[in-house]
Amino acid sequence: MIDLKWSPSEKKAAHAAFEAALSRERATIRRHVEALLRDTNDGTEIRATRDYLNEKARELDQKYDFRYSVLIGVFARLMAEGWLTLEDLAGLDIAKRELIREHSNVWRRT
Amino acid sequence: MIDLKWSPSEKKAAHAAFEAALSRERATIRRHVEALLRDTNDGTEIRATRDYLNEKARELDQKYDFRYSVLIGVFARLMAEGWLTLEDLAGLDIAKRELIREHSNVWRRT
Repeated sequence: MIDLKWSPSEKKAAHAAFEAALSRERATIRRHVEALLRDTNDGTEIRATRDYLNEKARELDQKYDFRYSVLIGVFARLMAEGWLTLEDLAGLDIAKRELIREHSNVWRRT
Repeated sequence: MIDLKWSPSEKKAAHAAFEAALSRERATIRRHVEALLRDTNDGTEIRATRDYLNEKARELDQKYDFRYSVLIGVFARLMAEGWLTLEDLAGLDIAKRELIREHSNVWRRT
């Protein structure tokens, strides 16, 4: 996507932010599954939970792509979806953070 | 499978036993999913739960087949797997219960 240089400390910060977002999204998926199983007991809950998890597992696979060549776009999407804040990205240089913020606004509109 | 006559009261008893077994097995699946999500938090739990539910949903679809032509075999399997007891089938005539018990022993050995 964009050929940027990542310093060692930025790489470390990027990994931490990526893992934090993934961990938050996984926690939300777990809570949703628990709620599905708790609130539905009409015989549809096994299939409904299966369908939900198939969709979410596919989405996670597609979304959480830690390649530096696409990472600005990945972080932008995670911000747009609320899994990441600019504070999580404080370890990145200002140019990258600005790029992520801008891309994130585009994601929010689409 | 076997061409047996089912009286109205036997049909009612068969439905109740079928639903009881399904309800027990679903409850066990739910508890297993809750345990999976509670005990695993290493990033593999979403896929592990998805895989488990895909397998179980497929198994339920295949196993819970309420057609009278196959119902003796269905009940036999449910008994062999512990989802059903002979007491659940008290509303069936003795010949059917005996058939189910015999088939169930075959299931247990295989």
